[in-house]
Amino acid sequence: MAPREQQGGGSGGGAADPEADIEAPLISSGSSFFFQDAAGEDGEEEQQRRARWRFLSSFGRLRSNVTSQVALVGTDVCPIESLDYELIENDVFKQDWRARGRTHILRYFALKWALCFLVGTLTAAAAFVANLGVENVAGVKFVVTSNLMLERRFESAFTVFLASNFLLTMFATALTVYVAPAAAGSGIPEVKAYLNGIVGCIAAVSASLHVGKAGPLVHIGACIASILGQGGSRKYQMTCKWLRYFKNDRDRRDLVTCGAGAGIAGAFRAPVAGVLFALETVSSRWRSALLWRAFFTTAIVAVVLRALIDVCKSGRCGLFGKGGLIMFDVTSGYINYHVVDLPPVITLGVLGGVLGSLYNLFLDKVLRLYNVINGKGQTYKLLLAATVTICTSCCIFGLPWLDACKPCPADSEEACPSIGRSGNFKKFQCQPGEYNDLASLFFNTNDDTIRNLYSSGTDHEFHLSSILLFFLASYFLGIFSYGLALPSGLFVPLILTGAAYGRLVGMLIGSQSTLDHGLFAVLGSAALLGGSMRMTVSVCVVMLELTNNLLMLPLVMLVLIISKTVADAFNANVYDLLVKLKGFPFLEGHAEPYMRQLSVSDVVTGPLQTFSGIEKVGHIVHVLKTTGHNGFPVVDEPPVSDTPELYGLVLRAHLLVLLRKKDFVSSCTASAADASKHFSPDDFAKRGSGKHDRIEDIELTADEMEMFVDLHPFTNTSPYTVVETMSLAKALILFREVGLRHLLVLPKSSKRSPVVGILTRHDFMPEHVLGLHPYLFKSRWKKVRFGKSAFTNFFCH
Amino acid sequence: MAPREQQGGGSGGGAADPEADIEAPLISSGSSFFFQDAAGEDGEEEQQRRARWRFLSSFGRLRSNVTSQVALVGTDVCPIESLDYELIENDVFKQDWRARGRTHILRYFALKWALCFLVGTLTAAAAFVANLGVENVAGVKFVVTSNLMLERRFESAFTVFLASNFLLTMFATALTVYVAPAAAGSGIPEVKAYLNGIVGCIAAVSASLHVGKAGPLVHIGACIASILGQGGSRKYQMTCKWLRYFKNDRDRRDLVTCGAGAGIAGAFRAPVAGVLFALETVSSRWRSALLWRAFFTTAIVAVVLRALIDVCKSGRCGLFGKGGLIMFDVTSGYINYHVVDLPPVITLGVLGGVLGSLYNLFLDKVLRLYNVINGKGQTYKLLLAATVTICTSCCIFGLPWLDACKPCPADSEEACPSIGRSGNFKKFQCQPGEYNDLASLFFNTNDDTIRNLYSSGTDHEFHLSSILLFFLASYFLGIFSYGLALPSGLFVPLILTGAAYGRLVGMLIGSQSTLDHGLFAVLGSAALLGGSMRMTVSVCVVMLELTNNLLMLPLVMLVLIISKTVADAFNANVYDLLVKLKGFPFLEGHAEPYMRQLSVSDVVTGPLQTFSGIEKVGHIVHVLKTTGHNGFPVVDEPPVSDTPELYGLVLRAHLLVLLRKKDFVSSCTASAADASKHFSPDDFAKRGSGKHDRIEDIELTADEMEMFVDLHPFTNTSPYTVVETMSLAKALILFREVGLRHLLVLPKSSKRSPVVGILTRHDFMPEHVLGLHPYLFKSRWKKVRFGKSAFTNFFCH
Repeated sequence: MAPREQQGGGSGGGAADPEADIEAPLISSGSSFFFQDAAGEDGEEEQQRRARWRFLSSFGRLRSNVTSQVALVGTDVCPIESLDYELIENDVFKQDWRARGRTHILRYFALKWALCFLVGTLTAAAAFVANLGVENVAGVKFVVTSNLMLERRFESAFTVFLASNFLLTMFATALTVYVAPAAAGSGIPEVKAYLNGIVGCIAAVSASLHVGKAGPLVHIGACIASILGQGGSRKYQMTCKWLRYFKNDRDRRDLVTCGAGAGIAGAFRAPVAGVLFALETVSSRWRSALLWRAFFTTAIVAVVLRALIDVCKSGRCGLFGKGGLIMFDVTSGYINYHVVDLPPVITLGVLGGVLGSLYNLFLDKVLRLYNVINGKGQTYKLLLAATVTICTSCCIFGLPWLDACKPCPADSEEACPSIGRSGNFKKFQCQPGEYNDLASLFFNTNDDTIRNLYSSGTDHEFHLSSILLFFLASYFLGIFSYGLALPSGLFVPLILTGAAYGRLVGMLIGSQSTLDHGLFAVLGSAALLGGSMRMTVSVCVVMLELTNNLLMLPLVMLVLIISKTVADAFNANVYDLLVKLKGFPFLEGHAEPYMRQLSVSDVVTGPLQTFSGIEKVGHIVHVLKTTGHNGFPVVDEPPVSDTPELYGLVLRAHLLVLLRKKDFVSSCTASAADASKHFSPDDFAKRGSGKHDRIEDIELTADEMEMFVDLHPFTNTSPYTVVETMSLAKALILFREVGLRHLLVLPKSSKRSPVVGILTRHDFMPEHVLGLHPYLFKSRWKKVRFGKSAFTNFFCH
Repeated sequence: MAPREQQGGGSGGGAADPEADIEAPLISSGSSFFFQDAAGEDGEEEQQRRARWRFLSSFGRLRSNVTSQVALVGTDVCPIESLDYELIENDVFKQDWRARGRTHILRYFALKWALCFLVGTLTAAAAFVANLGVENVAGVKFVVTSNLMLERRFESAFTVFLASNFLLTMFATALTVYVAPAAAGSGIPEVKAYLNGIVGCIAAVSASLHVGKAGPLVHIGACIASILGQGGSRKYQMTCKWLRYFKNDRDRRDLVTCGAGAGIAGAFRAPVAGVLFALETVSSRWRSALLWRAFFTTAIVAVVLRALIDVCKSGRCGLFGKGGLIMFDVTSGYINYHVVDLPPVITLGVLGGVLGSLYNLFLDKVLRLYNVINGKGQTYKLLLAATVTICTSCCIFGLPWLDACKPCPADSEEACPSIGRSGNFKKFQCQPGEYNDLASLFFNTNDDTIRNLYSSGTDHEFHLSSILLFFLASYFLGIFSYGLALPSGLFVPLILTGAAYGRLVGMLIGSQSTLDHGLFAVLGSAALLGGSMRMTVSVCVVMLELTNNLLMLPLVMLVLIISKTVADAFNANVYDLLVKLKGFPFLEGHAEPYMRQLSVSDVVTGPLQTFSGIEKVGHIVHVLKTTGHNGFPVVDEPPVSDTPELYGLVLRAHLLVLLRKKDFVSSCTASAADASKHFSPDDFAKRGSGKHDRIEDIELTADEMEMFVDLHPFTNTSPYTVVETMSLAKALILFREVGLRHLLVLPKSSKRSPVVGILTRHDFMPEHVLGLHPYLFKSRWKKVRFGKSAFTNFFCH
């Protein structure tokens, strides 16, 4: 702590919020967050952007994955401000609460639900447009190419295929690289990010890259929620007075959570899975009221999507509209399973866990590599995307040639070879009456390929070698496509690869079971999702809602449990890996065992910076300039009170508002009475995506510096506190359960000052704790968190 | 506070745990908890039982419904001890943690999962046996009666029907009234409760009472978990050393939660709904690790149930085994819906909300009445049950006679009239070639009736008058059957009544929609469940898993949202009403707005009882005898430390262990060093269902009373604390989020004693707060919680 303290401005000390120190390696778009910190062109712009991208950081406090999902899945992202859970209770806010009438509360209530309704509707619209776009763009591409193939003009077909994929990829990347950051710099960024996200996502998925729509849609949902929760964009006067009823962060954060859920609901047309996703990823701070609102939001998504699809049924949406609400319906096959099916299914789960954890491992390595490449500049981002799309196109077009043509089955209900876009029997280079089973897999949209793999009664349509080749190709294409600077999701590639993996297992050992290979494919998807993402309930419900097959439920659950357990033995889930890669100060959900042996006084060190209840302006300015702290205890000293008394905690952001308003007094006396006349709670409401106040921007005269300011009305009088003898483990539980950013440490005895320290997230990080107490490192009964073992995952839950 | 303090022993003061004061109106079995407090035969026995039934009380701290569900749904219940979330960190425990090796931790880990596995398996077995029993007992009854009816021996049929229902009901009631409390008094009560629960449930449901299996199964699941979590029964040496690794309450509580989820999973063969049920009802303290374990448990239930049903497929289970995993499969009908269907569906939701809230209202009234009747003694319980079963039998047998026979449809696929037990076309009193549609509804098991109502393509099979009559009858039969002294659940009656209600709406206004009446029935069930239980996500998933129809999802979600919203405007959900009826000190999930205007010092009053670090035995005994407090702050005074210092919090239970062990010292000096030699953590582990220690049972000589005891090793050194200026609202958040029972209040300035008060759940209760500050009552902008308005539900979420 002491060395940090001495770094002066910017670097967080005891009272600092650690986010302030992150070198903003944050998302602008795509996975470009991995190189955001190296992208800085001009200082001022970059400074602003960093502040703006200070994004979602409080999500890092959550158990795990909202950061991950909303921030890491990779898409055009809107800058979402760091949001608190804790309600600030200072006099200004309290007076405002007391003044609120029934009308206000009714309006507030109506607004909350109306915003959820809007978020649901807009997310559904985005999901619909994304689907419509992909189906049409990719559809036209495949129809044109297939027609050229039918005419046996293979070179032309390849040229068209490669060129369209290349152009689409470059378009998506250019949007992300050039437009999105510019949009971020020029105001109303979320709206642009929203639109860019949809367009970029359509282009990327249509370009036959192995990326999914779910990640971008989660982001888009969160963006919509963020725009609405902030009450519009201040800079462009696009604010809405109504919307500004959301004066506390909690409501905004709830809305963003609902938006993320709506994204999943829209992507998979799976509303219940959307709720569970929001729930499983934000598990530490779940309130039943939020459950109910998330449910409402995803229900709106489902109803709106259903209505839009209904419109398309009549064929008015081009190539889109055949799917209906269920994406991969597998109800057609009769499902029966017995005890003999257990060994193959268990094998599937075990191997799925291994493959899933390897996926995470490879993804980690590839992203580190991409990080380096992308960090070299915008041209490199484009070059990288170009390389990957060309390789992908070559694989997709080239690999099917390796495959021997199969004669069309005599008894097939489908046309063979398939006509038009989808279908199991792609003709490709084959003679009439034959089909290329590898082309049926490669030369299709991801959704159609999944549908083919899930289809029942098709056990003999595929060669073992084809499935093996496709599995390997899609496994690695998925890994290499994710880190590009374009909107991309992980969900669909995993489902696709998992389906191929499941079929493969079905072909190899399925003869000992009665299960159809299509069902093996469904289970394979579940196994790989479980092995990589480790979310149990939401993945289970996603699989259910995708396939509409409840009878499979026991097997899906079994596979998920096995693959998650196996994979947990090797590494962390994909989101945790990404969070680590990004360097977020990310608090674990559980306390490490050695934390029980420490008390909070063991980690709180360094000089504590406090303010008096009535403080000299010059001192405040000095402290704000020389430290990066975001919260300061306010202690009333003898002139004001009889003995030193803890009054509360004041935030840097609020101090800046005070200094800007210059509501100073000349003498050291209380002026609390008229605070509410000069300030309204709106003044303290967190800025949306606008420019952040900085102490350097506030100009004060020498006279003003000598004046005083009464901090009492602006001090949060109800900060959470612990006694210095409290064990670190229990303080951590408090910190996380209540969702804190600052925790005051009180003395156990009466002889000392009323507050002896302040804890931030940083002080709970294992690196910090073990840095202060290196002997614990040795005494730990396990060396996880620094090693590869999964004992933490196992034993601390 | 002060008056409470003066009541002396037994009545809780500031430091008391309020549970100790509840006059144990707790469950023994069935809904008999409503009269448990009046049942006391002999003092000693009753005393013991009260202590034992002090049951689940800490569940009351949870958001809502585990108490409700597990405790109130009504079945034979096992005594589940009050369980804490907070980990006690005293020296004895800490030494033990440090001493634990890798083997211990591995074993602990294995045990946690093994217990979940066992809970899942045993619950699945219970669910299977219950189903098997009901299907066979009720089946035989209906077959015999139907055969008599076919022979037109109506009087004999009625006699057989009435007699069998009467005997089954009396059997279930007698089990509950006589056997269950006896079992409770004689050890291993949970095992007996478990078996009685299953048998009683089979008898009650087979007796054609309008009660369900879900409630009892939730209870049975919780019982199994409780038995295993306690490590068996100590009294009968049926403990297992392995099981006693669960030394903290949190693990036990988690296990009980998983057990409750397993119960729902077993009752409806709906594993995902089971997880969500556990989650939605225990929402305030949800950890993702628990989610994962609950998922595992319900997966085990699903797999085991699936395997058992597989065995029955071959016909080895008598009349059981046709259902498969999906109870009410409605996939057969083609489902399509359009915008025109919205008005009828919305109407359905609105009316469902009204009916659901009325259901709660009537249930509340009837239970109050039953409470009075049952309170008069065991004979009255039997008489009440007898009355209800006779009325029910008369309704079921009598009402179909009002109905005109319908000619069999020519094109029906089913046999008409139906043969045997189930079927849509009950012949009843009709001539050959005709059927009685009312008998098809009444004269069936509940499950079969639901199946009939859900069946598609049957729009013309029922008269409007039949459906109306059946709806009214089942609505009120459900209400009148619930409070009887036998295992009964609310879920199935609501589904049944809702299905009739949905059909009714479909018949009345369905002509304007394209929906099948069977689908209206499904939506009607959702509407009534939403209107009464107000659980959104779990009810939604229950309906999905019951009917296996994902295409309905948007409509089901819509109906649920509407009916819950409408019903919330009238009264609280059924579980909250029951909790209130029972008088649990139940902490709301949210803070009332007026709590923001109070600080904790406004509600902490009365003299605070503290102990010194090294305290005189006589003083401890005196304090324990004269107060009912369950926790005492330990403050080191000048002989031991320089200034008064807060050392921690010691629990009454731990003090009793100390006094019993008589490990005293003769002088006031520290003896902490050898504490671990004399005590092991096992000594402090909470007793399962065994006898509770009481201070009166400990005999100490006058010499011993003059000795000292060193409390340091036994004091929880990490109690949670707040400063006296903390707002009550934020203290409540801490109290609930972290799951506390005691919260120490510290002074804001240094001049006073290191601890100035202690908060328990009682101090947060609106009644207590408003009693101290009556002016707030007037200033509240709403008078909810005491009135009927639902503004709280609306605005505080």
